Amino acid sequence: MTKYIYSFEEGGKEMKSLLGGKGANLAEMTKIGLPVPPGFTITTEVCAYFTKNNKYPEGLWDDVLAHMKELEKKTGKKFGDSENPLLVSVRSGAPISMPGMMDTILNLGLNDVSVKGLEKQTGDERFAYDSYRRLIQMFGNVVMGVPHEKFEEIISEQKKKRGVKEDTELTAADWREVIEKYKELIKKETGREFPQDPYEQLRMSVDAVFKSWNNERAIVYRKANKIPDDLGTAVNIQTMVFGNMGPDSGTGVAFTRNPATGEKEYFGEFLFNAQGEDVVAGIRTPKSISDLKKEIPKVYEQLENVFKTLEKHYRNMQDMEFTVEKGKLYMLQTRTGKRTAAAAVKIAVDMVNEGLITKEEAILRVNPNDLNQLLHRRLDPNAKKDVLVKGLGASPGAASGKVVFDADETVSLSESGEKVILVRNETTPEDIHGMIASQGILTVHGGMTSHAAVVARGMGKPCVAGCEDIEIHGDFFEVKGVRVEKGEEITIDGSTGEVIKGIVPTVEPTLSGEFKTLLTWADEIRDLGVRANADNPKDAVKAVELGAEGIGLCRTEHMFFDPERLPTVQKMIMSKTSEERKKYLDLLLPMQREDFVGIFKAMGSRPVIIRLIDPPLHEFLPKREDLMVKLALLKEHGNENEIKEVQELLDRVNELHEANPMLGLRGCRLGIIYPEIIEMQTRAIMEAAVEVKNEGVDVKPEIMIPLVGHVNELRIAREIVDRVAKSVLEENGADIHYMIGTMIEIPRAALTSEEIAKHAEFYSFGTNDLTQMTFGYSRDDAESKFLAQYIDKKILKDNPFAVLDRDGVGKLMKMAVSDGKKSNPKLELGICGEHGGNPSSIEFCHIIGLNYVSCSPYRVPIARLAAAQAKLKNKN
Amino acid sequence: MTKYIYSFEEGGKEMKSLLGGKGANLAEMTKIGLPVPPGFTITTEVCAYFTKNNKYPEGLWDDVLAHMKELEKKTGKKFGDSENPLLVSVRSGAPISMPGMMDTILNLGLNDVSVKGLEKQTGDERFAYDSYRRLIQMFGNVVMGVPHEKFEEIISEQKKKRGVKEDTELTAADWREVIEKYKELIKKETGREFPQDPYEQLRMSVDAVFKSWNNERAIVYRKANKIPDDLGTAVNIQTMVFGNMGPDSGTGVAFTRNPATGEKEYFGEFLFNAQGEDVVAGIRTPKSISDLKKEIPKVYEQLENVFKTLEKHYRNMQDMEFTVEKGKLYMLQTRTGKRTAAAAVKIAVDMVNEGLITKEEAILRVNPNDLNQLLHRRLDPNAKKDVLVKGLGASPGAASGKVVFDADETVSLSESGEKVILVRNETTPEDIHGMIASQGILTVHGGMTSHAAVVARGMGKPCVAGCEDIEIHGDFFEVKGVRVEKGEEITIDGSTGEVIKGIVPTVEPTLSGEFKTLLTWADEIRDLGVRANADNPKDAVKAVELGAEGIGLCRTEHMFFDPERLPTVQKMIMSKTSEERKKYLDLLLPMQREDFVGIFKAMGSRPVIIRLIDPPLHEFLPKREDLMVKLALLKEHGNENEIKEVQELLDRVNELHEANPMLGLRGCRLGIIYPEIIEMQTRAIMEAAVEVKNEGVDVKPEIMIPLVGHVNELRIAREIVDRVAKSVLEENGADIHYMIGTMIEIPRAALTSEEIAKHAEFYSFGTNDLTQMTFGYSRDDAESKFLAQYIDKKILKDNPFAVLDRDGVGKLMKMAVSDGKKSNPKLELGICGEHGGNPSSIEFCHIIGLNYVSCSPYRVPIARLAAAQAKLKNKN
Repeated sequence: MTKYIYSFEEGGKEMKSLLGGKGANLAEMTKIGLPVPPGFTITTEVCAYFTKNNKYPEGLWDDVLAHMKELEKKTGKKFGDSENPLLVSVRSGAPISMPGMMDTILNLGLNDVSVKGLEKQTGDERFAYDSYRRLIQMFGNVVMGVPHEKFEEIISEQKKKRGVKEDTELTAADWREVIEKYKELIKKETGREFPQDPYEQLRMSVDAVFKSWNNERAIVYRKANKIPDDLGTAVNIQTMVFGNMGPDSGTGVAFTRNPATGEKEYFGEFLFNAQGEDVVAGIRTPKSISDLKKEIPKVYEQLENVFKTLEKHYRNMQDMEFTVEKGKLYMLQTRTGKRTAAAAVKIAVDMVNEGLITKEEAILRVNPNDLNQLLHRRLDPNAKKDVLVKGLGASPGAASGKVVFDADETVSLSESGEKVILVRNETTPEDIHGMIASQGILTVHGGMTSHAAVVARGMGKPCVAGCEDIEIHGDFFEVKGVRVEKGEEITIDGSTGEVIKGIVPTVEPTLSGEFKTLLTWADEIRDLGVRANADNPKDAVKAVELGAEGIGLCRTEHMFFDPERLPTVQKMIMSKTSEERKKYLDLLLPMQREDFVGIFKAMGSRPVIIRLIDPPLHEFLPKREDLMVKLALLKEHGNENEIKEVQELLDRVNELHEANPMLGLRGCRLGIIYPEIIEMQTRAIMEAAVEVKNEGVDVKPEIMIPLVGHVNELRIAREIVDRVAKSVLEENGADIHYMIGTMIEIPRAALTSEEIAKHAEFYSFGTNDLTQMTFGYSRDDAESKFLAQYIDKKILKDNPFAVLDRDGVGKLMKMAVSDGKKSNPKLELGICGEHGGNPSSIEFCHIIGLNYVSCSPYRVPIARLAAAQAKLKNKN
Repeated sequence: MTKYIYSFEEGGKEMKSLLGGKGANLAEMTKIGLPVPPGFTITTEVCAYFTKNNKYPEGLWDDVLAHMKELEKKTGKKFGDSENPLLVSVRSGAPISMPGMMDTILNLGLNDVSVKGLEKQTGDERFAYDSYRRLIQMFGNVVMGVPHEKFEEIISEQKKKRGVKEDTELTAADWREVIEKYKELIKKETGREFPQDPYEQLRMSVDAVFKSWNNERAIVYRKANKIPDDLGTAVNIQTMVFGNMGPDSGTGVAFTRNPATGEKEYFGEFLFNAQGEDVVAGIRTPKSISDLKKEIPKVYEQLENVFKTLEKHYRNMQDMEFTVEKGKLYMLQTRTGKRTAAAAVKIAVDMVNEGLITKEEAILRVNPNDLNQLLHRRLDPNAKKDVLVKGLGASPGAASGKVVFDADETVSLSESGEKVILVRNETTPEDIHGMIASQGILTVHGGMTSHAAVVARGMGKPCVAGCEDIEIHGDFFEVKGVRVEKGEEITIDGSTGEVIKGIVPTVEPTLSGEFKTLLTWADEIRDLGVRANADNPKDAVKAVELGAEGIGLCRTEHMFFDPERLPTVQKMIMSKTSEERKKYLDLLLPMQREDFVGIFKAMGSRPVIIRLIDPPLHEFLPKREDLMVKLALLKEHGNENEIKEVQELLDRVNELHEANPMLGLRGCRLGIIYPEIIEMQTRAIMEAAVEVKNEGVDVKPEIMIPLVGHVNELRIAREIVDRVAKSVLEENGADIHYMIGTMIEIPRAALTSEEIAKHAEFYSFGTNDLTQMTFGYSRDDAESKFLAQYIDKKILKDNPFAVLDRDGVGKLMKMAVSDGKKSNPKLELGICGEHGGNPSSIEFCHIIGLNYVSCSPYRVPIARLAAAQAKLKNKN
């Protein structure tokens, strides 16, 4: 027969999924001899059974009664007794902590008879009746559903009647009156009496706790925290102890280390002569735990020992609840303490140094994503904020500045020394210069993988995206009735997504010694290399500083959007012949070369993967619809020349127009149709390599051909690149080892990897595009159109553009890796999509045997840590 | 040692790839005892060697000399002899016939000395010198590169000088003068003498033939006919015979059956006293072969026997060349005769009836694609045509009508009895009513799989697409300097892609009894079922008539584009709440139901797969850019109400706007976001099924959920469909078996097929979308932007939207089939993409074990035949 109940002596900390976190740890503390009031736990399996069948498994209740008898034996008290009554608490306790989400009932076992027993035992009539009314109030509310306020009203009336202000001024007699009124209230509201039978109280309470697993706030909390709905909660039934039995009693919470800073110091709060609820209610100001040392040194000493024992036993910082009843310490809870990212790093490293845990354990203790907090400016946590609206925290960090709606204006204002927040419906590559000049970016549309978000993360610049409540009207925006003019100051928090009126002070990030130590340990352990995506020398320098071992993706087209170059780029695109095109490409050559020189210098002997031009050409031209409007208006009252000029531009834009540009003439297709473009780019790369090599740097250029779907595309593009590269080396009498590889971002490339690998020295998985095409989701559209709803409805567990989809996209990647290695065992494998900075995706990259991940510079530390974790989690 | 030369006695018809078609068949005829002038063949391997190394394999020439000696022995003549000279021809002969593409030299072996021998042997001085001058002329041109016209000039001068008009009036003396002038010409033009050494003549000729494999016209021909460049040609060296040695001599070509009609009758042409070149030159009008019967009955009888022998031996209709030299018949060539589609069908069926071939062979004899010719009206082959331009033959058939540029106008004109050709830059779903009303469609942009092409093929309506030379300007179009006004008549030929000025008469298609017989045989053999894609009752009737066994794809959205319904559809889309949307859906319900009633009635007890709504909603609204222009102009001088109305429409269009609609909110995503749409559609389908079932028809509805990429999408959509279907059946007390399945058109669906198959009763591969996403090609853009160039550059062998890509898309399909069968062995498998009507793709569907293919009604016969061929070709 299944065992549904465990007394605290039977359980242990490894039984969390059966006993819940609270139950397992109470059992563990009991086992190691800490002072825990006796009790037992009904398992989560009962919750599952109860939820499904709306009744308990057969025999369960008899088992509960048997355990209650045992409690009576252990305590020498009797449940509901008029002389020496046993009182218990009933508390929920899920495998994953859901603080405050489910129900608790205290003081069970009190009734009109046993309250007298309590009075006798404590010699404190007021205490006994106060405890009883607390039970009725809590039970009436939680179990029987009577609104909390109605109980409070009765107390208020009593105080009014008695002319007092505080609860503490009410006497035993008052509480007795209150108790009668409470009972009437319950009768009136529910049609039922408050149950005098303590076992009926107990049964109804256990029912209520199990039911609370599916109350609305618990469901919402689980959804927000991605906790599975089928875990269920356990129920803990435990002997009551009382912190409110006089000056040598009290209750407290404590951490074995400082959860904010990680400092090795006891940290906690204590309330003398109080129960746990009083701490939570926040009516009285608690004292620091160190006060306990002065007031009840014996207890403090005992507590210190418990702290040491628990930390050593759990080998982690603990967060505990305890009660002191007449000078006797009772432990009511222990769990691994939540901590800030900074504290997590410090504690992990300190514990290694203290010999408490291994380096491997330290690495596994820190959530890589939390490192984000440490890498960016953030709002001063103590500052006041007037939050206008909350969007998506799309690129972490906080920034303030004047609202501007136009990229050019952002540039000119910032040049005159102003700080600017660029506010756009959405950004396009044409806004790049404005984004660079801004302090941060705020967009109305778009999600976590929109253009604004991706570019901002790449730049390490704060971005809030998808603020759909904002409406931009020319020179101001409106949000929830508030009007914000151009030039007004706002603050954005790219971690939380908050948009705040005015300027909020921010604090600098500081990278502690422990932070660096932890990453050094991660570097020793991980197999995966970590490179950065960087498009310019500034980002490259930052990447190296943060530990990047190379550049995994240098996008060359961002260089084309530079406002100084764009007119030349546009003329190149408008060219009617290959010759004309070459003329403009020749003008671009020295500029591109300069970009690469800077990057090569920054990267030294680290490999640099440069991707040839990728986006469709029309992205460099004005928008078709804007030109159409312009032309229509010009025809009303423009001159012939203007009309002709716009018409010509529109004609070319129409020629280049595509219904689905993401699936159109871009990537290597461009280089095959217009070879002169990639000839120029290859020349720029190799000439830059020669120049830097001549300065004594052992440059390692790697040229990447994007969007290959058929081996012949790679073959042809590769021939062009190889020819130009060789001829540049020959012209310069130089000898530089360069590599040529391809992105794997088209499903067909993954499917035919065995062929493609024959012509590639390296692969870089472009998982953004690969996800787009494998799912048939347009990254630009899906998030705002249906993806959010899909995640809401649990059709998808995660946004596949953020967390790599292992079943679909991952299956293609696995095929590509194993088929590619078949025909080219020396193939180098990496990833440069957004997923390269996502810990779950990094783990997958480790599992399938990639050589490195590449991500934006600011995610490099995260990737270093995640890569080490991946190795540790998949040791077998 | 490799054998490089085969005498005719050594080869045989199975050695085509080594000896070329001509050589293999000359050997075969020799082997079976037919009169073939002796000779030998240098293999295609020599060509490959020669092309690569620019020289012959060692020992080759000695071997040629040895074979020449043998020829001398066989004929009793001597090469270059002054008494009894041996003359030979040197002819190319590739494994696949390339008529006229490579070089031939006749009369080799003549020189100043041997010409006298020929004179002695024939007693005909004029013949001897005429033969000699023919050699010099042909050799001078083909081998030594002197332009043909320069030789003709010399003859013209000679005729002028002698005052005669015809070549035949020139005497032996004249030819001797001409010969001297020819020699001077060659010397002058090339600096070299015409070689007197017959072996030098021979060697230079063989060189020239091998080199001609890579002349420009041969390369172009191979590209056009998809013949691999590495096949190479063989060279045949054969004893000359002469059809120009008097009235009992002559030369002819013949077919064993009529190649135009397939009638069992000898068919051919004969020229008395002439050489092969004279027939080709077309100077004299040849006589019918039956004249030979009257003039030289003995030879005709002999010829008749040869015809019978060859047809029986080759078991196929033969196309032959022969020469009669002084009453003696010589066979110079035989090969399988080319034939029209009608003849192919008739000959195949007749031969089965004659016991010559099996039904299986008959089925393999007809190219399924050629059946197209038989199924559509075509231009009268004898009519004159003034071709304006040639586009892509996108949907076969021919049609004439007045040029109209607008869909609405097409409808109104056609309603007043006019025939109209709809001319558009490209068509969109909004043009459907115009396409239906038109005789045919002509588009400027778009390829074989553009909207216009796909829809037109579905309707069986002629379409010429991708006429990029046409420029539409409002009320007229211009093409290559010709202006065609609206209302002018044009004719389009959707098979050849021709656009013709004026009306060209057309002829009706007739389906012969043999056609039906052949398809009946195909039906007996094939495993694959054949269904049709049909969206309305008319197409469904046609499909059944052409042999469809069900509907594999009924698209429901085309019904939404009906001009009567579109306003309601638009209101539905503009709705702000689910309730409002339902109101308009309720109005659409009876219309959709009616559509389905008609289709169910047409299909009887055959299965009908109906796909729920697929395209993005914005396709039903006006275009965003048009609205933007309209609004901008209205703001100049419109009234407030108009502006407001357009602004509202534009706002909704903006909301629905997507950067890449193909990857956006469409397919099942729509049904999940707006369940009320597919609820209405399911209700319409099931109510129609009930209605038709009540009339005694055993309806078989199958509901298909499009664009599934994750099993949860299918699960949720399926629940909605199932719920509504069951409730309709319950409301009506009806019991109808219906199936629910999904399209497999997203790569991820194929990759996760094992999961998806658990929730699907059938799969239909949507290979259009699957190809788009697997390649990352937008069907609307790729063809005009880069696909044509890709095929030109041989990056891709075929357009993957026309011929299924087995390596990539096919790999996904194979995975989907085998993984799907794992979890659902009863899964029904079909295909409804454009590939369902393409023979190569049908073969692949057979190989991977699909249950059926579905294609447009007019391709059903093609699919039936192709399915049988697939079975036969893959028997092992």
